[in-house]
Amino acid sequence: IAYEASRGNEALCENWAAYMNRSLHLALSADQFLITIGASEALIFLFMICADPGDEVLVFDPSYANYISFAATAGVTLRPVICDPEDGFHLPSVAAIKQHISPRTKALLLCNPNNPTGTVYRSDELKALLNVAHEFGIFLIVDETYREFVYGDSQSLSVLSLAPGDPSVIVVDSLSKRFSLCGARIGSIITANTEVLRLANNLAQARLAGPTIEQHAAAYMLKNMNPQFVETARLEYLRRRNALCDALARVDGISFRPPEGAFYTLVSIPGVDAEAFCTRLLANFSHDGETVFLAPASGFYITPNTGRSLIRIAFVLAESEITRAIHIVDRALQTKIDQTE
Amino acid sequence: IAYEASRGNEALCENWAAYMNRSLHLALSADQFLITIGASEALIFLFMICADPGDEVLVFDPSYANYISFAATAGVTLRPVICDPEDGFHLPSVAAIKQHISPRTKALLLCNPNNPTGTVYRSDELKALLNVAHEFGIFLIVDETYREFVYGDSQSLSVLSLAPGDPSVIVVDSLSKRFSLCGARIGSIITANTEVLRLANNLAQARLAGPTIEQHAAAYMLKNMNPQFVETARLEYLRRRNALCDALARVDGISFRPPEGAFYTLVSIPGVDAEAFCTRLLANFSHDGETVFLAPASGFYITPNTGRSLIRIAFVLAESEITRAIHIVDRALQTKIDQTE
Repeated sequence: IAYEASRGNEALCENWAAYMNRSLHLALSADQFLITIGASEALIFLFMICADPGDEVLVFDPSYANYISFAATAGVTLRPVICDPEDGFHLPSVAAIKQHISPRTKALLLCNPNNPTGTVYRSDELKALLNVAHEFGIFLIVDETYREFVYGDSQSLSVLSLAPGDPSVIVVDSLSKRFSLCGARIGSIITANTEVLRLANNLAQARLAGPTIEQHAAAYMLKNMNPQFVETARLEYLRRRNALCDALARVDGISFRPPEGAFYTLVSIPGVDAEAFCTRLLANFSHDGETVFLAPASGFYITPNTGRSLIRIAFVLAESEITRAIHIVDRALQTKIDQTE
Repeated sequence: IAYEASRGNEALCENWAAYMNRSLHLALSADQFLITIGASEALIFLFMICADPGDEVLVFDPSYANYISFAATAGVTLRPVICDPEDGFHLPSVAAIKQHISPRTKALLLCNPNNPTGTVYRSDELKALLNVAHEFGIFLIVDETYREFVYGDSQSLSVLSLAPGDPSVIVVDSLSKRFSLCGARIGSIITANTEVLRLANNLAQARLAGPTIEQHAAAYMLKNMNPQFVETARLEYLRRRNALCDALARVDGISFRPPEGAFYTLVSIPGVDAEAFCTRLLANFSHDGETVFLAPASGFYITPNTGRSLIRIAFVLAESEITRAIHIVDRALQTKIDQTE
């Protein structure tokens, strides 16, 4: 099993470009791709490329928690801009965003659709970010790992469709979620910026290569898969999301919005400390011998002491299990602390 | 395909420990292993763990060239101690080594058997390095990627056999060479130092996981392979090494020593600029329509302007091809520049 090319398997780049060109009506070429060991490595590379240690990258709070460790690996500081739960965690005003930009800010980073909020950003929001990036001469990095997973009125949209060929735009993509392939560690950096690709290739050469077998398999899969595969997966998650919303609608004392995309949503339980509640579910509660593992949202906030009454729900179970899980959460909310049913 | 554990597949750790315990009469346990994405990632992690940016790691010149890029990724400075070609690139005196240690030196790094020199260090050399590490309270990192590939009187020796349980000793290992699996990207950090393993696990968690399929396959292979597989591979490389030495012995104007291990050797061509000679072989020379790709050794030296008349030969071809290649090198040496036969 020989080393793969540092920048990734050529057929994988070609077939990934063809996949996106087909589904998004783009005209990407294989040489705009660099394959990484998961989106994780793509983001670590991009923090190293776009910023020097001590520089800042602006993120929207709450954010995917691992952005914090990727930034730490590169010595970069994440500067959070808080998004309002009442607005479905959509972006704040351009003025509010600009307030957080300093001379050390080198990039804006957005996860669209968002983990952990389930927010799908509209094209006017992406265009506003693009304008900010242009005004300050910084990068706009969009993590589109969940791109196809949009529900209801939301539209699946790549920032590459809004600004094809824009050298300030970098997309991070991944096969992990849409093909249930997270263990294959196949991510990519996609950009028209040849200097970013050149520096990414330097970093890729420094670790020699990504895994060979998975790249060959992924190249084959992208070329030969059933074209309905991803839409079938999206419809399954749509059913799970609807089951979740139906179940949440029957719970007193919480507030939520139907998630627009991805596999996640944040639910507010006013007056409840989410971390204590999640701990209690695991340590001191069961209903008919079962309980539920939830994540307190505070772990997704960089801003301290924020999101304390929010929990993150991942709707990655079958519909009936989601319904049952939310029923257990409901029972726990309605019973006193340390009471087991 | 689910995420593998950040610290690696448990069966892979167990079977790798069993493989080493069997062949080296050690008593390693699976929890002394952390699986990395090739030895490359192991070394990047160890530079980050053992040193802060700006700290120094002492290496022996010439060294595996990629140590330079791994160190750059971690912001660590490599401090080279030159080894003498006349002594087969064995280690210099302890006094010479200590001269290069500063308060910023955090580790000694040795590749044994060595790429690019083919040197296999004796147990007295390893013991001397261990003493230096203990005296200065720093780490001894030994890259044992080529451990089984030793020839002639040299012995296959892990530093773990000399100092079992020593918390200052860290081994970097890899399945790439002994199983021709470099594209699988399976390396490991092996140490009794639980703090190093804890920090390595933090870095491993920061990139989520290594590739799943290769780790499962490698775990299966280590358990079920023909126990003679590696010895068969060693004997093949021994034949190639002997064919190389036989061919080199017939070339005028060079000096060499039979390589003690690994797949490499450095050959001295006194009075010849090795880089110019290697370039000429590719650009301006052919013999019966063929030429040879050699690496000038200067790329393996951190010390500037060193090893200028040395070439590195990798004996990774079949015996007859090695004989033919050295004949072509011989013809090139005996003909004037820009003359093609």
